[in-house]
Amino acid sequence: MTSMRESDPKPFRRLLLTGAGGNLGRQVRPALGQWAEYVRVSDIISLGEAAAHEEVVFADLSDESAVQALMHGVDAVVHLGGISVEAPFPELLEANIRGTYHLYAAAQAAGVRRIVYASSNHVTGFYPTTQVIDTEAPVRPDCLYGVTKCFGEALSRYYFDRFGLETVCLRIGSSFEAPRDARMLVTYLSFRDFIEAVRCSLFAPRVGHSILYGVSDNRTKWWDNRHAAHLGFRAQDSSIPFESQVPPAQPCIGADDIAQRYQGGTFVLAGPMASKR
Amino acid sequence: MTSMRESDPKPFRRLLLTGAGGNLGRQVRPALGQWAEYVRVSDIISLGEAAAHEEVVFADLSDESAVQALMHGVDAVVHLGGISVEAPFPELLEANIRGTYHLYAAAQAAGVRRIVYASSNHVTGFYPTTQVIDTEAPVRPDCLYGVTKCFGEALSRYYFDRFGLETVCLRIGSSFEAPRDARMLVTYLSFRDFIEAVRCSLFAPRVGHSILYGVSDNRTKWWDNRHAAHLGFRAQDSSIPFESQVPPAQPCIGADDIAQRYQGGTFVLAGPMASKR
Amino acid sequence: MTSMRESDPKPFRRLLLTGAGGNLGRQVRPALGQWAEYVRVSDIISLGEAAAHEEVVFADLSDESAVQALMHGVDAVVHLGGISVEAPFPELLEANIRGTYHLYAAAQAAGVRRIVYASSNHVTGFYPTTQVIDTEAPVRPDCLYGVTKCFGEALSRYYFDRFGLETVCLRIGSSFEAPRDARMLVTYLSFRDFIEAVRCSLFAPRVGHSILYGVSDNRTKWWDNRHAAHLGFRAQDSSIPFESQVPPAQPCIGADDIAQRYQGGTFVLAGPMASKR
Amino acid sequence: MTSMRESDPKPFRRLLLTGAGGNLGRQVRPALGQWAEYVRVSDIISLGEAAAHEEVVFADLSDESAVQALMHGVDAVVHLGGISVEAPFPELLEANIRGTYHLYAAAQAAGVRRIVYASSNHVTGFYPTTQVIDTEAPVRPDCLYGVTKCFGEALSRYYFDRFGLETVCLRIGSSFEAPRDARMLVTYLSFRDFIEAVRCSLFAPRVGHSILYGVSDNRTKWWDNRHAAHLGFRAQDSSIPFESQVPPAQPCIGADDIAQRYQGGTFVLAGPMASKR
Amino acid sequence: MTSMRESDPKPFRRLLLTGAGGNLGRQVRPALGQWAEYVRVSDIISLGEAAAHEEVVFADLSDESAVQALMHGVDAVVHLGGISVEAPFPELLEANIRGTYHLYAAAQAAGVRRIVYASSNHVTGFYPTTQVIDTEAPVRPDCLYGVTKCFGEALSRYYFDRFGLETVCLRIGSSFEAPRDARMLVTYLSFRDFIEAVRCSLFAPRVGHSILYGVSDNRTKWWDNRHAAHLGFRAQDSSIPFESQVPPAQPCIGADDIAQRYQGGTFVLAGPMASKR
Amino acid sequence: MTSMRESDPKPFRRLLLTGAGGNLGRQVRPALGQWAEYVRVSDIISLGEAAAHEEVVFADLSDESAVQALMHGVDAVVHLGGISVEAPFPELLEANIRGTYHLYAAAQAAGVRRIVYASSNHVTGFYPTTQVIDTEAPVRPDCLYGVTKCFGEALSRYYFDRFGLETVCLRIGSSFEAPRDARMLVTYLSFRDFIEAVRCSLFAPRVGHSILYGVSDNRTKWWDNRHAAHLGFRAQDSSIPFESQVPPAQPCIGADDIAQRYQGGTFVLAGPMASKR
Repeated sequence: MTSMRESDPKPFRRLLLTGAGGNLGRQVRPALGQWAEYVRVSDIISLGEAAAHEEVVFADLSDESAVQALMHGVDAVVHLGGISVEAPFPELLEANIRGTYHLYAAAQAAGVRRIVYASSNHVTGFYPTTQVIDTEAPVRPDCLYGVTKCFGEALSRYYFDRFGLETVCLRIGSSFEAPRDARMLVTYLSFRDFIEAVRCSLFAPRVGHSILYGVSDNRTKWWDNRHAAHLGFRAQDSSIPFESQVPPAQPCIGADDIAQRYQGGTFVLAGPMASKR
Repeated sequence: MTSMRESDPKPFRRLLLTGAGGNLGRQVRPALGQWAEYVRVSDIISLGEAAAHEEVVFADLSDESAVQALMHGVDAVVHLGGISVEAPFPELLEANIRGTYHLYAAAQAAGVRRIVYASSNHVTGFYPTTQVIDTEAPVRPDCLYGVTKCFGEALSRYYFDRFGLETVCLRIGSSFEAPRDARMLVTYLSFRDFIEAVRCSLFAPRVGHSILYGVSDNRTKWWDNRHAAHLGFRAQDSSIPFESQVPPAQPCIGADDIAQRYQGGTFVLAGPMASKR
Repeated sequence: MTSMRESDPKPFRRLLLTGAGGNLGRQVRPALGQWAEYVRVSDIISLGEAAAHEEVVFADLSDESAVQALMHGVDAVVHLGGISVEAPFPELLEANIRGTYHLYAAAQAAGVRRIVYASSNHVTGFYPTTQVIDTEAPVRPDCLYGVTKCFGEALSRYYFDRFGLETVCLRIGSSFEAPRDARMLVTYLSFRDFIEAVRCSLFAPRVGHSILYGVSDNRTKWWDNRHAAHLGFRAQDSSIPFESQVPPAQPCIGADDIAQRYQGGTFVLAGPMASKR
Repeated sequence: MTSMRESDPKPFRRLLLTGAGGNLGRQVRPALGQWAEYVRVSDIISLGEAAAHEEVVFADLSDESAVQALMHGVDAVVHLGGISVEAPFPELLEANIRGTYHLYAAAQAAGVRRIVYASSNHVTGFYPTTQVIDTEAPVRPDCLYGVTKCFGEALSRYYFDRFGLETVCLRIGSSFEAPRDARMLVTYLSFRDFIEAVRCSLFAPRVGHSILYGVSDNRTKWWDNRHAAHLGFRAQDSSIPFESQVPPAQPCIGADDIAQRYQGGTFVLAGPMASKR
Repeated sequence: MTSMRESDPKPFRRLLLTGAGGNLGRQVRPALGQWAEYVRVSDIISLGEAAAHEEVVFADLSDESAVQALMHGVDAVVHLGGISVEAPFPELLEANIRGTYHLYAAAQAAGVRRIVYASSNHVTGFYPTTQVIDTEAPVRPDCLYGVTKCFGEALSRYYFDRFGLETVCLRIGSSFEAPRDARMLVTYLSFRDFIEAVRCSLFAPRVGHSILYGVSDNRTKWWDNRHAAHLGFRAQDSSIPFESQVPPAQPCIGADDIAQRYQGGTFVLAGPMASKR
Repeated sequence: MTSMRESDPKPFRRLLLTGAGGNLGRQVRPALGQWAEYVRVSDIISLGEAAAHEEVVFADLSDESAVQALMHGVDAVVHLGGISVEAPFPELLEANIRGTYHLYAAAQAAGVRRIVYASSNHVTGFYPTTQVIDTEAPVRPDCLYGVTKCFGEALSRYYFDRFGLETVCLRIGSSFEAPRDARMLVTYLSFRDFIEAVRCSLFAPRVGHSILYGVSDNRTKWWDNRHAAHLGFRAQDSSIPFESQVPPAQPCIGADDIAQRYQGGTFVLAGPMASKR
């Protein structure tokens, strides 16, 4: 929670970052180096050159022993690996279900203390855009990808209750350079705020099993983080400066425009039916 | 939700403003012209000269066919018409009950998409000043006027559930140039914030049936808008700058000072008994 | 709450029963005679022969002075008068809005202590049949008749908060000789249980402003009366014995069968659109 | 909801029962024949001789096309298939995750209307035995098996929200001939009550996505079904008659006896650590 | 939870009963002998002849070392000692505050596992008789005696959170041979039900820190025990058979009859003001 | 709520400050002189020189008649007296239980209107640091000192319900010059914010019985004051500027570090066991 002073020793000896090569992995990777002596970065795609404090490991999450090897000497994990869009179920199953199980089983066996789990706003994407929810609302996933994130949240709850392995489920909104449409004005999470959410999740003395919506301080809000105030996350950015750069929403849309009707947006339409057509 | 650019087409073709000649109608009337190609303004009192984009119509809400005529070609309505203070019940009945029914029936028949309904904080004015309520608290009207606003909220709920006609019930606090007494420091809604609340209510892609307390960002708060965060309303003003201009409240008033004891203030005393004296 | 002994004096001197000639008025009329020395029975239709303790008064609720006259010497009112089905709004307005206002204004002026107000399950009929609600759920009326009952509930809340005139809002289910279809198996209120609900509402030492769903102990329940346990109502009957006499519901109906989808049943379809056809 | 008369046509044309050969499948199989003209029974173990109205199909849930074939002409499914005890994760993944996905995808494609999904009390088994929960409490699975049931509940929520395919998640307690220990006195679900819970889940006109704890009317209760009262389930049995036949619990156990401390009982200890030993 | 068989060993080796000579102490004393090999009974008044399994100890709760001596070899305590009516504060302070502290401190030091603490409905007696509360409602004591019971509940919460010493706070209604007035018809706890509540509180494997209203299954209910269903208490008796033997309540009492207005009844009037007059 | 103008008469004639010589008493003492013509300051330690408007009285709260004398002519009390750290129970009992009773009894007898009661965050200190609570959460005191503050809150509730004597229970966080460790970054209440909380508590026209967590606008929050928004307290300070001056917390502490696990911090360990060692 506290800022660090130059002279402080780094609080973590080794952090593991999975999915280090993805959109968000690339954003958070440099920050981890400020917080840990060693940062192990992993993905199934190329990760570029390693910094002095980095250990680059190529590992597929569906490979159990590869995941076990990843955990050696790790204090805490930022788990961004897996698939983060709608996909055929067999692919989601390997990456997000089998892979997440491997991650937790290996972390628990290796004595890891905490995992920051990249969950998604799509675990509750079928709530209507006219309802404000908090982190205790029952899940209403909006696609199969969202369903696999519900699995991950349930699995992490189990590993905390059973083994004391802590998790922050970070339900990430839309984390891009800039919002691109009216929905993203609501769900926008700036890169800076994303990194701050990861920092809070790693540095809080205790998190138990916590859930946090990762979203900037936008004008319109669907998600109420009051149960997560113990994590100390304060968004510094907002989508307000981008409002004039985004195509304006059509007011008074009809009830049959379901991508506007539900918080998940077009993900709601991305399910198995669609993939058949 | 997004700000508009000069070059954007106006999102509404025609808005209807009822009660255009009243205190708040005069405030919001100019803004509507920025949002719609045509603005139909209506009242039973004089409305002054019409701007180029305005259609001035004299109509009594208790006249069913006049109200039907008002709705022709209208996308959305800002309904400020009716009586907004305590009055003898027969008058309230004509203006606020029969009139509001005419408005909703005609709007539904004409295919209007949304109504911003000027409800009032007096639908919950009998909550004590020591309790903070949200928009799901059961109604506790503080006068007959407040009871007729409860009718309007229930009617609008019905029109949404049955016909999909959306409504934002805007429970307006005290919207004047400046707060005039200690209670108004709590209930103050600046004109600018009032217009912003109307804008949010009109521009949100979906509102379903929503309730929003219209109140600026005052120091003391009786009303919690967290269920309405999806509307994107953020007060820009506050009564704090006016605090020193208002006669100070007497601290530690007795429990028998019922105008201080209930949120409705002196409205609480304005009921039928009083009118007999 | 207590049973009465033969030798006890009757606890009420005079009760007033409005709507005494209707379906439910005829059921409860004899019971009132056991509880009060005098029973004033009123309606706009014929009421048959008066018993020795009865005062028969023909009065239209929309006639203010007639209603005032009704209240003379009355301790408490069982208000069943008005329209209890969907009807054109002007008729509902006269009977259920203007009439109910007359009733409360006159009762308050005459010093009446309590009113048992025949509200209706149709104030919440737009909740889906898959949701269980309690008496604090926001209203969702399913027809204009239901909207007028929301008015009555709000009005009675005001008269209690302002003047201390107590009310029990009895949200009556389906009170007939026997349930006639699958929905009524859920909403059935036997005549005996209806009378018991009125008795509890009259005899509890204090009721303040209470809401009670009037429903027998049926197998399926949509309404949870736990906030009303202070009234002491215990249903003695159930629709279970009637289950085999009613045409069985079709299981797994489609989402487009809205009369099965909402608690209000066919009332949901009875609104202003329908009346135009 | 209603009892059936001899002369009524059976309300379902074809029901599918998966896991028909298991402990509970054998119990409910005969009842299904009273409710449907055809009953398709399926398992990966022997199912004995088929009754005249039965279609016996051997099918592995992890075989996608086999599951698709199962759905032909089916109105509704009672899905008891899969693994219902703790097991190595790869086995649970095939049976309970991949298999359940196959089931829902095939059911949706085939136009099935409703699924009664055998969920488990182990989705919330990590709540302490000193807390009473309802069906909206966040999941706290007590083993990997429980985690896979959380997946099934989330998946079924998605299929209802996206496609309208209804599900009742039946969180089954301990359904055996008789309770065998002190915990089962709390979690006992008699076979008769189990069948009644399935009947209610199939026959209610609408269920949307509902959750019901399947438990008899035992003395001690950890689970509150009030949100499921619309399903009409009333337990007829209780564990009370078995109390004297079960080894008495030790009162005032220590906090370190975690099998007594959590609702999941010994399942809490059955996780991945244990399976390694 | 389970009934005991003749041949079972008694589950407790030694129980301590304080206040054994009082109204309720005399009722529960014989039952304790069925549950424990030794029963230590204590009071500051005469306790009559000891049964073979009983140890009679005269001890004043405000005497710290006497209380320490009481705890030797004790498994669990039924703490009925202290003052159970309104009294001058210095007396309440000695008996109910200092005495209860002595009891908990000594119990914790001696390794006692559980205390059944005789709390009182008067910790919430200032809730109005028109409101139904559960065991999580904030305290609203109706007299100084009630305030001291709030102290005891808070103290016991501390001893559980800090030391694991379990407590059931039994908020006893009106436990007498028979109800004597209209209020007691609501608050009546038969002696049999009182003993059963103590039995459940002692025998549940885990209770943590639980609160249970001790009340029979009376017609009117102010108290909702749903958070205590894990204790397995089911009232077997009711005040209904006594209804005709009690002076009937006056219906429609005025708001100024505060003994009828609040759940605490005449206790509400018994405070320090009264004692001065 | 309103700022005062130079020319306004002071709203209070006489305020009483107990514990005026303590850490917080010294902070608030000068401010009281701006709000009242006379300020009576009291303690059992030296209070330095009196200002012109001050009346210095030496009084021990456990001395009933001394406390009665203190109340003469007092409008409202800021009660900071008593012990505010863990201490042997007999000392806490005299100062915080007997003393607080004397204070309330004397205030009520003297017609005092309102008391600002210095409660403590330690009344809920046994909530885990991973949970955010509001002012309606049941108490979970973390030490005997906290238990005595629970007594004071219950006592003050009684005096309001019974006699109309208003109280704000100010649950003070950590009010020092600066936070000294990681926990205090969460619980920090600046002196300026402390004085503002007292001002709001004194000046609100009505407070009834209110509870307010006294805490600055720190980054991490355990306490949600939304039920207290009617008091108008807005923190102006934050611990954020101090973050770099405090030894950083160790992230990912173990579950066995109970001073980090519970909100009460080291107070959790300060109980009677500890004092024996």
